[in-house]
Amino acid sequence: MSESTLLVVGTVAFDAIETPFGKTDKIIGGAATYISLAASYFGKKINLISVVGGDFPKQQIFAMNERGINTDGLQIKENEKSFFWSGKYHLDMNTRDTLATELNVLANFDPIVPEAYQNTDFLMLGNLVPAVQRTVLQRLKKRPKLVVMDTMNFWMETAKADLDEMIKLVDVLTVNDAEARELSGEYSLVKAAKKIMAMGPRYLIIKKGEHGALLFHENNVFFAPALPLEEVFDPTGAGDSFAGGFIGYLAQSNDISFDSMKRAIIYGSALASFTVEKFGTERLMNLSHDEIENRIQEFVDLVQFDISLVD
Amino acid sequence: MSESTLLVVGTVAFDAIETPFGKTDKIIGGAATYISLAASYFGKKINLISVVGGDFPKQQIFAMNERGINTDGLQIKENEKSFFWSGKYHLDMNTRDTLATELNVLANFDPIVPEAYQNTDFLMLGNLVPAVQRTVLQRLKKRPKLVVMDTMNFWMETAKADLDEMIKLVDVLTVNDAEARELSGEYSLVKAAKKIMAMGPRYLIIKKGEHGALLFHENNVFFAPALPLEEVFDPTGAGDSFAGGFIGYLAQSNDISFDSMKRAIIYGSALASFTVEKFGTERLMNLSHDEIENRIQEFVDLVQFDISLVD
Repeated sequence: MSESTLLVVGTVAFDAIETPFGKTDKIIGGAATYISLAASYFGKKINLISVVGGDFPKQQIFAMNERGINTDGLQIKENEKSFFWSGKYHLDMNTRDTLATELNVLANFDPIVPEAYQNTDFLMLGNLVPAVQRTVLQRLKKRPKLVVMDTMNFWMETAKADLDEMIKLVDVLTVNDAEARELSGEYSLVKAAKKIMAMGPRYLIIKKGEHGALLFHENNVFFAPALPLEEVFDPTGAGDSFAGGFIGYLAQSNDISFDSMKRAIIYGSALASFTVEKFGTERLMNLSHDEIENRIQEFVDLVQFDISLVD
Repeated sequence: MSESTLLVVGTVAFDAIETPFGKTDKIIGGAATYISLAASYFGKKINLISVVGGDFPKQQIFAMNERGINTDGLQIKENEKSFFWSGKYHLDMNTRDTLATELNVLANFDPIVPEAYQNTDFLMLGNLVPAVQRTVLQRLKKRPKLVVMDTMNFWMETAKADLDEMIKLVDVLTVNDAEARELSGEYSLVKAAKKIMAMGPRYLIIKKGEHGALLFHENNVFFAPALPLEEVFDPTGAGDSFAGGFIGYLAQSNDISFDSMKRAIIYGSALASFTVEKFGTERLMNLSHDEIENRIQEFVDLVQFDISLVD
């Protein structure tokens, strides 16, 4: 079986993070960073499209290359600065204040698709301006087998028409619970899911942070818990790591059945559970196969029960 | 195998409920009402200890008797009024304001244990003044095989010493997530669980409402989701129905292993999912075996996934 190719689009950036447990200077962040690193534990045919400034450390790019991530589509604007986000988490770790957002290179990001990236099997559109996500999709000569898109409330409020257009074009949409409610105008997540799937995507993933994630498809629903952790050190990148584990697993298995998606959600949850253990991408840079498999076993133990029903 | 006996202690009362979907006049409520009704789907040897006033409808008591609930321990104070609670739910259905609390017969409740209730195998202490819960336990000549206690934040704030003493004496404690945090002083539920289990109970159940429930025991943790529902009509009694399904299943199976407790939590979650579909106890009065089994199947479908791990 030949390995599928995965194209990841999104930000590669700097973050500065403050949590109840500590704070960082500028560290490596960005949706596409987390996504591609998480996906790299499943396959080595990962292509990245993003943009950084001359201030972005070359050794980080090399480290990503070493993990099998092709960065030919990562534009480096030597005379500009990388996207920068700074935020502070509240004690519950579910809410945060944005302290600074500097678009920098992102302001005029024109996503170039290298010829070698064409014919990609899987496309993961990380959270980004919807118009940029659309440009990437348009520049692919062949529609990928599966297109997954993450987005956020900001685009619902500032680029609704573009976002609606993109939502029509994707197979899987991922949003958090508040965003699902905002997008649908429904409080019940079951009703929200029905409305959102009617907008286009055949699959919807609603991420609930420490409360797990729901996968909807037609009349089916699957729930994956988050692992109960002693300490959530830094939630930044959890959703992106989840997406990376999800699409990484699907690309590796090359199976987009509902059962495969369920497994993919568990792998995504496992990758996210590592990310929150340390600041930034630290934990995602050096996981072992055994660590991941042991964590999957924890998910199995967490939810597995045995009830024999009489038909 | 002879059926185990279950003793349920708690309030039998009136509620008046307001939700975003409607409001009720005085309807039947009370922790022990929900617990014993939910448990009645698992066995017919259920003994109830509670107190009501002369205003409590006799036909409700007959209806409970018809479901196999022995009410010899239900004191009727003909010249007094039943306990009354009134509350209003916010849109999220997770928070509510108490509009009225009239203790009435509860103010001087002396729980009498009929001789026929002695030698009970399972004891479910519904949320109640900790000193009254203790009196029941003291009046049982033989300690039951399993003692489960529910409590709430109100007792943490007004009867902490009595509550602490009770917590030492029970096998399973059930609280919600906010209460677990208050009781332990820990934000992380994993840390909270360790601290609370160190206070006495070998098992701890943390109820998270629409986000499911966690069962802790030594270093094991099990998670049961709540069923994603189109509409939560009235959350009143959900936690008590959960407790009733939990202890009812355990009493029926007469198996208190961790695996059995996991199944019991799924049954408890299923019973709770019915209760919230209508106001008050309406849904719990007439469930069929098939409805319950079909709902259990929904839980299986909701969380079941198949990952083959290489050891």
